[in-house]
Amino acid sequence: MSTAKTMLDTHPADTGESDLDILARCIDACRTCAQTCTACADACLDEPDVTPLRTCISTNLNCADLCTTTADVLSRRTGLDTELLRAVLRACDYACTVCADECAAHAEHHNHCRVCAQACRTCAQACRELLTSLG
Amino acid sequence: MSTAKTMLDTHPADTGESDLDILARCIDACRTCAQTCTACADACLDEPDVTPLRTCISTNLNCADLCTTTADVLSRRTGLDTELLRAVLRACDYACTVCADECAAHAEHHNHCRVCAQACRTCAQACRELLTSLG
Amino acid sequence: MSTAKTMLDTHPADTGESDLDILARCIDACRTCAQTCTACADACLDEPDVTPLRTCISTNLNCADLCTTTADVLSRRTGLDTELLRAVLRACDYACTVCADECAAHAEHHNHCRVCAQACRTCAQACRELLTSLG
Amino acid sequence: MSTAKTMLDTHPADTGESDLDILARCIDACRTCAQTCTACADACLDEPDVTPLRTCISTNLNCADLCTTTADVLSRRTGLDTELLRAVLRACDYACTVCADECAAHAEHHNHCRVCAQACRTCAQACRELLTSLG
Repeated sequence: MSTAKTMLDTHPADTGESDLDILARCIDACRTCAQTCTACADACLDEPDVTPLRTCISTNLNCADLCTTTADVLSRRTGLDTELLRAVLRACDYACTVCADECAAHAEHHNHCRVCAQACRTCAQACRELLTSLG
Repeated sequence: MSTAKTMLDTHPADTGESDLDILARCIDACRTCAQTCTACADACLDEPDVTPLRTCISTNLNCADLCTTTADVLSRRTGLDTELLRAVLRACDYACTVCADECAAHAEHHNHCRVCAQACRTCAQACRELLTSLG
Repeated sequence: MSTAKTMLDTHPADTGESDLDILARCIDACRTCAQTCTACADACLDEPDVTPLRTCISTNLNCADLCTTTADVLSRRTGLDTELLRAVLRACDYACTVCADECAAHAEHHNHCRVCAQACRTCAQACRELLTSLG
Repeated sequence: MSTAKTMLDTHPADTGESDLDILARCIDACRTCAQTCTACADACLDEPDVTPLRTCISTNLNCADLCTTTADVLSRRTGLDTELLRAVLRACDYACTVCADECAAHAEHHNHCRVCAQACRTCAQACRELLTSLG
């Protein structure tokens, strides 16, 4: 079991959700995506031909910031505000989708972009599943 | 002149914007709000009667995270994606408005909440002005 | 294999390290600890008797910030500066050790503190192993 | 008066410090430096000849992370731990000094690096003053 799920299960709030698995999966996907995008930005920066990777680096940095913030906001159950979750998840889904597309365009040449594109797709999908479950 | 404005003026991108002042003001408001919310969360936590301030603390922490991320995303002009800015600004505007309302409810008793409510209102307003200027 | 390790393996830098496993383990431990501390701070905040948990909340928030920053700094291999890594790892080791002790003091009553104390111990240990391997 | 100073003055803790001005100045310098380094990293990335600026970008990103975390840790007065402050300030002072030197090497060609070098020097100085005042 992921640590995120364990922490949700030991939280005093009984938020009546049947969907803690979906929530935990989204937190885990955001955290993994944040780390992967931070690493991919740096790997792109260190490539011999960095010029065509500028947008990829910037996109990675934005996606990493959004994913870290989304994971943290999702982890807070006190004073829960579903409308805030929706707005943050929409922004995170968008950032991950853009970053997945950008990284996919470099995936043939750079393995870090291939791995990162997959982490971004997984995270965008997890955000959309949670959005659906929130109604 | 704020450092944010100076950095926008020295950036190599000529993004053709007539609205760098609005952008710089939003970055500055986000940074100030993030710091104020981080400090207000801790001041609330240290109040003798912390129980009625739980939601305020959680709301402050969410608002601080959103404002820091928004300031950072707005500071990146490489590979600019206006739709990403809109999604992030909408989430930040919402988080600031909720936090302003929550802090305002405690402003009579706690000066840190009074100051923080004002920083949140200023930031929400700056986000909406930038959203309007983005079209 | 962890995503952190995959990203290190696909990075263009050949930093000549024999210790990428130790590095990846530290990045993973920092990310897990950051998420766990963010969740534990919020779980503490939501406990019926929050007053004795104030220091624990503040300690959790500091530890989460340090762990996120440490994971990000460790993920950047471009322009590697070992002295910076040492200073950051020392601060992170300290923050994790303090947070582990504080959470352990509440572990009997709160399962989230018990889980969090373990994540903090694991992370402090990973920071020290990496410090040793850096020489 | 800076918002950081106002928030320290309205905090319920009476930490008996005569040095809230030094503390507020350090928080403000960290926040300004974080924003400036985030913007400088992006401006460097967008320069026509990005290759010689790789290390500068990576150094800027590390410095931004350290400064944001330092500002947040310094803003928390609940459960104050002076040894943690010292470890974080030492890491931040180091990151700022390295970034100031790196940016200064490009200051003649890039105004964003010239402005950023100054923000980093100011922040490093503020960290050292606070370290001295902590004893």
